Amino acid sequence: MSGFPEWSPEQRIIEKRVLEKIEESFRLHGFINIETCGVESYESLIKKGDGKEIYRLAKAGSGEENLGLHFDLTLPLARYVLERRGELVFPFRRCQIQKVWRGERPQGGRYREFYQADIDIVAQGELPAHFEYEVPLAMCHTLKSLSPLGLGAFSMHINNRKLSEGFYRAIGIRDVEETLRRIDKLGKLGVRKTREILEEVAGEKGAEACLDLAQIEEKDPERLSERLEELRAKWKVDSPSPERDLMLEGERDAEAVLSSLLRSGFEGARIDCAIARGLDYYTGCVYETFLEEDLALGSICSGGRYENLISTPKQSYPGVGMSIGVSRLLSHLFSKARADRVSPAAALIAVWSEEERWRSDEVARTLRERGIACEVSPSASKLGAQIKRADRLSIPYVWFVSAEGEEVKDIRTGEQKEADPASWEPDPKYAADIIVRE
Amino acid sequence: MSGFPEWSPEQRIIEKRVLEKIEESFRLHGFINIETCGVESYESLIKKGDGKEIYRLAKAGSGEENLGLHFDLTLPLARYVLERRGELVFPFRRCQIQKVWRGERPQGGRYREFYQADIDIVAQGELPAHFEYEVPLAMCHTLKSLSPLGLGAFSMHINNRKLSEGFYRAIGIRDVEETLRRIDKLGKLGVRKTREILEEVAGEKGAEACLDLAQIEEKDPERLSERLEELRAKWKVDSPSPERDLMLEGERDAEAVLSSLLRSGFEGARIDCAIARGLDYYTGCVYETFLEEDLALGSICSGGRYENLISTPKQSYPGVGMSIGVSRLLSHLFSKARADRVSPAAALIAVWSEEERWRSDEVARTLRERGIACEVSPSASKLGAQIKRADRLSIPYVWFVSAEGEEVKDIRTGEQKEADPASWEPDPKYAADIIVRE
Repeated sequence: MSGFPEWSPEQRIIEKRVLEKIEESFRLHGFINIETCGVESYESLIKKGDGKEIYRLAKAGSGEENLGLHFDLTLPLARYVLERRGELVFPFRRCQIQKVWRGERPQGGRYREFYQADIDIVAQGELPAHFEYEVPLAMCHTLKSLSPLGLGAFSMHINNRKLSEGFYRAIGIRDVEETLRRIDKLGKLGVRKTREILEEVAGEKGAEACLDLAQIEEKDPERLSERLEELRAKWKVDSPSPERDLMLEGERDAEAVLSSLLRSGFEGARIDCAIARGLDYYTGCVYETFLEEDLALGSICSGGRYENLISTPKQSYPGVGMSIGVSRLLSHLFSKARADRVSPAAALIAVWSEEERWRSDEVARTLRERGIACEVSPSASKLGAQIKRADRLSIPYVWFVSAEGEEVKDIRTGEQKEADPASWEPDPKYAADIIVRE
Repeated sequence: MSGFPEWSPEQRIIEKRVLEKIEESFRLHGFINIETCGVESYESLIKKGDGKEIYRLAKAGSGEENLGLHFDLTLPLARYVLERRGELVFPFRRCQIQKVWRGERPQGGRYREFYQADIDIVAQGELPAHFEYEVPLAMCHTLKSLSPLGLGAFSMHINNRKLSEGFYRAIGIRDVEETLRRIDKLGKLGVRKTREILEEVAGEKGAEACLDLAQIEEKDPERLSERLEELRAKWKVDSPSPERDLMLEGERDAEAVLSSLLRSGFEGARIDCAIARGLDYYTGCVYETFLEEDLALGSICSGGRYENLISTPKQSYPGVGMSIGVSRLLSHLFSKARADRVSPAAALIAVWSEEERWRSDEVARTLRERGIACEVSPSASKLGAQIKRADRLSIPYVWFVSAEGEEVKDIRTGEQKEADPASWEPDPKYAADIIVRE
């Protein structure tokens, strides 16, 4: 089934470790874990998503087709917040790690079923600007926590919708959303093709100006101000106007995020005016994150601020959130790290004969009660065959049971010692079960 | 969306703890964790499942309808094993904890989307009989590990297909599978109605005999032999025959499981000849598990041995497995346990003013680096309001930051002390975040 990835037991060890690390980082940052069901009403999905990519559910002999699989975790959050707005404490810091489904064409790092790991902070009424740096900061810490699993340097690219929109409006572009959607294709289509599709909505001059803005990528806040100043002068939009003010507001908000990430030691942070994000609900800062050694993988962690996505007629719930594409990240990490274990067992308890299997069962029970994982040999075959199973499953120890006394053998070193199931501990060196390739 | 459960943040804490405990127990028993994708080919699902309950996937404007959501984790295991039979080490001990989907009518404890937690041991060629007690034993340990979360006493009911089949054939029943399917309804329909539907396939006398067998429930292995002896004598099938031998074989296998569970201290184990299990692929022992204080909940952990479910034309892969209905279990546990926390944060770091927010951010960073979860106050509002947020999220401490020195207040006791973010630890009493009701 193309696009529906399934990992080997060894790869699954890495996936689980990645998910655990992400979850632990979210916990440290005080995010409340929730899970939503995998389905949403088809109507709500089709409103925000691409119909061609949404999996709709049907049952044989039933008209029930009003459900579909969620394609992200943001729409489910919106519904969850509205349904529980009376009981949640706002600002609501939530994290959510689940699979989502998109019927896209499968290709490198893109799957039809994949894990996303999201954090969002949703306020009631007003969302303070500092959350626009708190969320990417938490994500930088989270990605950093994956470096023991082989994740290399990453760069976080920050833009602000107000900055782009202010400039677009100032130069006379009317359909801002469509322009953003088209500028979003820049990385994929390249400058020439993007210019062509931009000209359709922004005219020749407008397309040129949009591409000019999109060229601006800066790590130095001061230099950024200068370059945007120059841009405004070049396109003659530097005199005071509501559009220029909107642009300056966006500039200031993006710059605050950049400064805070740099202050926290994330050298990979930068303003990148080409970042548009395809979704129409973003209203403030937007973010994308790239692995420096694998740019072709695309963004591994993206998001932004949204003002009106979650709202009732009386109240809006603005938020800011980011999402890690965990499965995409894994497709990269599998080339960097490998599991050094197959079975979680620290010891295989040998069996002399089926009549005496109960002795091995007893040892296993004592070890498990002490938190030591083990398995009892499936058969009372020759010891060599039992040791071979341990070896193939990378179980480091084989335990020999007898009425007279117990012995345990480290099958990697060959060392064999007397041992008591009530006190024996495996060598801590065997706890490291993931090896990062140099 | 009826039947698609979604928990509050507090309930989710309990769900996560239950899932963690189950996973840890599976790990201790040496089961290898895998995950399969949520979809299977629709053809393979319809072969083993009830078409009315299977969710089929469709995409707008696409003919692609050959996929459906898995309704259990056994069929996916079968496919996984066959696809990877060249690389897996047999017997393959696998565990898998995932959501499954069934379009059933939602009712107490029955959902359309729910978690299952499965263990299976799959062999290549022959599966030794001892696995038929090892799997239920692991499940007993696993369920027992949930008692700190409020799970009470449970009884595990064991039967063996060979026992039932041998008896059915001996008394002249031809359609054994259909008879088993109908006897499986006994708990739901009661004796009178079950007798009616049994008579359709087994005749009047056959129905009476089937119900006679189904009455046998025994914890004492010796008494069990006697009662089955009496039954055979009553129905005149006690002289040697292949059917009687099959029955005796099943009796012996079931008794071995019972003895081993009793020896390990699981007093709730018993042979129950009414246990049939609806699925046609079981060939040996079958199991169901009930909570003593909530029998109406139905079986919370079921399974059995299957000989031919996983096979190629050249090789069969017999297995034995059991599955915990986690979501069903939760619907019970939510009445027994409650979370004492909402936010995972141990401390809320107060903020004096937005200009000084960076100081609070620094404290948070130091605490997080030491593994202490915290959140920085969302606003520099009055201290009372900040403390109120901590209280509503059940965050036990509020941290006061200043250039001169740090203080931390236990908002439950009111105690306030100087503290250093580089060394402070929350009181371990606040680590217990789930309270079991007396």
